Amino acid sequence: MSHVVKKRKLDKTRQDRLYFDSYTDVTIHEEMIADHVRTNTYRMAILRNSESIRGKVVLDVGAGTGVLSIFCVQAGAKKVYAVEACSIAEQAVKIVQLNNMEDKIEVIRGTVETVDLPEKVEVIVSEWMGYALLHESMLNSVLYARDKWLSPGGIILPSKAELYIAPISDPVVEDRLHFWYTVKDQYGVDMSCMSDFATTCIMNSDITVNSVTVEDVLSHPARFAELDLHSVTVEELRSVKGKFRCESFGSAAVNAFCVHFTVTFPCPDKPLVLSTSPFKPETHWKQAVLYLDAPVDVVQDTVVTGEVSMYPSEESGRHICIHVDYTIGEQKRQSKTFSIPDWSSEAQP
Amino acid sequence: MSHVVKKRKLDKTRQDRLYFDSYTDVTIHEEMIADHVRTNTYRMAILRNSESIRGKVVLDVGAGTGVLSIFCVQAGAKKVYAVEACSIAEQAVKIVQLNNMEDKIEVIRGTVETVDLPEKVEVIVSEWMGYALLHESMLNSVLYARDKWLSPGGIILPSKAELYIAPISDPVVEDRLHFWYTVKDQYGVDMSCMSDFATTCIMNSDITVNSVTVEDVLSHPARFAELDLHSVTVEELRSVKGKFRCESFGSAAVNAFCVHFTVTFPCPDKPLVLSTSPFKPETHWKQAVLYLDAPVDVVQDTVVTGEVSMYPSEESGRHICIHVDYTIGEQKRQSKTFSIPDWSSEAQP
Repeated sequence: MSHVVKKRKLDKTRQDRLYFDSYTDVTIHEEMIADHVRTNTYRMAILRNSESIRGKVVLDVGAGTGVLSIFCVQAGAKKVYAVEACSIAEQAVKIVQLNNMEDKIEVIRGTVETVDLPEKVEVIVSEWMGYALLHESMLNSVLYARDKWLSPGGIILPSKAELYIAPISDPVVEDRLHFWYTVKDQYGVDMSCMSDFATTCIMNSDITVNSVTVEDVLSHPARFAELDLHSVTVEELRSVKGKFRCESFGSAAVNAFCVHFTVTFPCPDKPLVLSTSPFKPETHWKQAVLYLDAPVDVVQDTVVTGEVSMYPSEESGRHICIHVDYTIGEQKRQSKTFSIPDWSSEAQP
Repeated sequence: MSHVVKKRKLDKTRQDRLYFDSYTDVTIHEEMIADHVRTNTYRMAILRNSESIRGKVVLDVGAGTGVLSIFCVQAGAKKVYAVEACSIAEQAVKIVQLNNMEDKIEVIRGTVETVDLPEKVEVIVSEWMGYALLHESMLNSVLYARDKWLSPGGIILPSKAELYIAPISDPVVEDRLHFWYTVKDQYGVDMSCMSDFATTCIMNSDITVNSVTVEDVLSHPARFAELDLHSVTVEELRSVKGKFRCESFGSAAVNAFCVHFTVTFPCPDKPLVLSTSPFKPETHWKQAVLYLDAPVDVVQDTVVTGEVSMYPSEESGRHICIHVDYTIGEQKRQSKTFSIPDWSSEAQP
């Protein structure tokens, strides 16, 4: 199904309808709330910023179930505008009532681009990050809200986002490619020639959302981009790019790159970082895995350099594309462009 | 995405394109070959039927990678026509060559409804079963092939299919509904009201493909339908229905029905059964789970009776619908209609 849809250019309204539809099912909200790293880091960040939130007016962009809005009231916010475009807003209203915060939190059903607030806000809080940080491009809405509704000197939580890349060796792929060599022993049929077909299918140009195990990461992740949410513009988001350089820990067959991100919350004492690194506890974002066309052998200290560029897909503005130019050791420069398949925009994971 | 597509009536050709598209990816074929219960039962059934296959002409309907055709040659078939509509046929050709059977196996790219064979066949072999047996309605093609190409007295492997249903108590659903009561302790936000929303989302009318654990099955599965592949007609497949009666093993909260199937191969000694029962080793078909709108308590020997009716969906003829009329104990008669969501027709599981 996705193949077919992918080829068709979606009109803006249909894109939005599909996008907002995907958040009406309970599963995604359950996954987000149950993501302890995500929810607890936001909770801590908001509570530790109570100095800057107490008595202030807050805008929660894409409030979902309204949990961040409630954290803000718990941190002393005078008023929170919880803006949510999809029907989960109806649940947010009930949750706000259940927590007796109707006087403090106003749930507004609509997109932040279209809602009209009675006043400017001093704080913007939002959990806008998608797969590979920019998938779903909800950050655009946060920046729009910033430029239209944030008072001078106001704060944004989180205030910074950083993107990282590292070469990895995914053993699952190796196993899946090897599987076809094992069929003969099992059933007396030689299917080894399927391994080539499997390679083209598995090591394709989809951005695969996967949990990368620490052992499979072949170097320290290299930061290739940083976004300051106080200054970055929507225009700049149309192409987020940067160079990287990694040195292999040891000998292995590189068969993919792993992209992950962090967002940082300013805090009185020291900043709080929400990390989706494979070296940190797993989050529902997992990591974005980009498979090479074929594995490349590296040894200790083999240098992997390149440039990553991320931009919205032409078919659907909410879908992210990742283009990677890379050189592994003495190999000649190569490049591959990846995109998120359509199924990932469904509630169904 | 699925919601939107589901509402649109698909034209026959588009349906077929989507259906055949979903088999071009390696994942589904890997899953099928790696399903040891499936592949080994077919292998055993074909080899044990070598008496009836030796020197005979065979038609493999929906041959895929051609593994069943190769089993037939190993069983002594004189000639096998391996008919496959989707591009995996190209791989089947390579596999046949790799096993030096080009002289015996002719891979024909096309639908069995449109291909023209030079002769009638004495054996039809096919692995046509979909989720809940009839999803994808590939059996129609097997029956078409039977009526057009099978010689009088010819055999069909498998030759019989049976459908079963049992009430179950799925603890995962209970956990997911309970989750919303645990949020307050974790984050100090009362989200218990989300439990109702979760119920409507999770206990919906989708046919869920899931591995049901033995402990969760509340009675002996009741057989509600049997299809004799030698006599059943395409017309009869437009509505496969039957009554059932189950008696609860003990006290529990019924929150779903589980539908599974078996297919039977005639064998000289005793018939060979490929079972997808939750009481048997897991297959890639798992079980079809149909969630009630709300759990119903039963005690030991509580009688659960009803009637199941399976028919192709109006939107897409390849999608199966399951309608269940049921009475649990003293409860009044209830009914619910289920269908397979669109994502399941993608290679992506």
